[in-house]
Amino acid sequence: MKELEDRILRDGRVLSGNILQVGGFINQQIDTSFTRDLARKVHSLFSSSTVTKVLTIEASGIAFGFAVAEQFGIPLVFAKKSKTSNVDGAVLSAPIHSYTHGSDYTATVSAEYISPDDSVLIVDDFLANGEALRGLIKIVKDAGASVAGAAIEIEKGFQGGGDRLRKEGIRVESLAVIDSMSESGITFRR
Amino acid sequence: MKELEDRILRDGRVLSGNILQVGGFINQQIDTSFTRDLARKVHSLFSSSTVTKVLTIEASGIAFGFAVAEQFGIPLVFAKKSKTSNVDGAVLSAPIHSYTHGSDYTATVSAEYISPDDSVLIVDDFLANGEALRGLIKIVKDAGASVAGAAIEIEKGFQGGGDRLRKEGIRVESLAVIDSMSESGITFRR
Repeated sequence: MKELEDRILRDGRVLSGNILQVGGFINQQIDTSFTRDLARKVHSLFSSSTVTKVLTIEASGIAFGFAVAEQFGIPLVFAKKSKTSNVDGAVLSAPIHSYTHGSDYTATVSAEYISPDDSVLIVDDFLANGEALRGLIKIVKDAGASVAGAAIEIEKGFQGGGDRLRKEGIRVESLAVIDSMSESGITFRR
Repeated sequence: MKELEDRILRDGRVLSGNILQVGGFINQQIDTSFTRDLARKVHSLFSSSTVTKVLTIEASGIAFGFAVAEQFGIPLVFAKKSKTSNVDGAVLSAPIHSYTHGSDYTATVSAEYISPDDSVLIVDDFLANGEALRGLIKIVKDAGASVAGAAIEIEKGFQGGGDRLRKEGIRVESLAVIDSMSESGITFRR
């Protein structure tokens, strides 16, 4: 999506450690009308699919996930990164390794929010190695539901996670795919 | 707001430890169209105020915060509960004690996202003792910006945090204020 690529080039910053800083419009300060445009694009990409729920993971997927779910007129469910006192009852969970934070955590969703008749669109702001997405796919499958696909704002294509999932038959739609990046520039996949 | 009170009575559950479980529509599974109705209400309450940014804290304030910010046509900023590798540069921060999780954390916002000319509406899903809200107010004031007020989905009025802030001159608008709750029932403030 050209508008997203242009915005990344204009407002993004490449930091050391393969970090793309887009906190000014995506994941700490959120440009709400721009996020709405991205959500509309996701809705058009999946308009021929059955989607009954959007699933994301806290925290930076929630704003985009909300916009996408609202576009479909369906609920948003977000996985928590730890079991907290306000999640009771049976849970679905998946271990996830975060390269960004250099740590492991367990993604948790209350089992009552995903049922076997759900067709789930998984949404996140970033896709790099695909560990978070893989964990969310496990949660959907453990619930007996089906995965409609995944919609991502920015995929770090050079880390390979998206392509591995595509080879496994998951429909992964990323609004911008970065093939390479360094402090001297960013190249998008054509 | 009667629609919210009715929904709490219908779908909420009171758990031990003063926990109100509203995960089915507010803070793990989010009813997007209902959240939009709540955001419209907040917009109407603050329609005569100048609001340039909405500030919330991860994770469960983000969906509501996004809807409110979009309603005003302004950006959403969310404070992180820890400094992560994708927040660089100068930060604004405040120590916060969470009664829900029984722990302390530091709320952090990149300093570039709140400037002295901002008038900030603080938004959260819950207000109980007011510690999170107080921390976010400190962040806004440290930035030299002004606090337009606070908009909360559910205030646990019996914990007193909202009333203490009102006495200090902060405009706190809660869409539902619970005066008492137990497993046998919930009473709202009239």
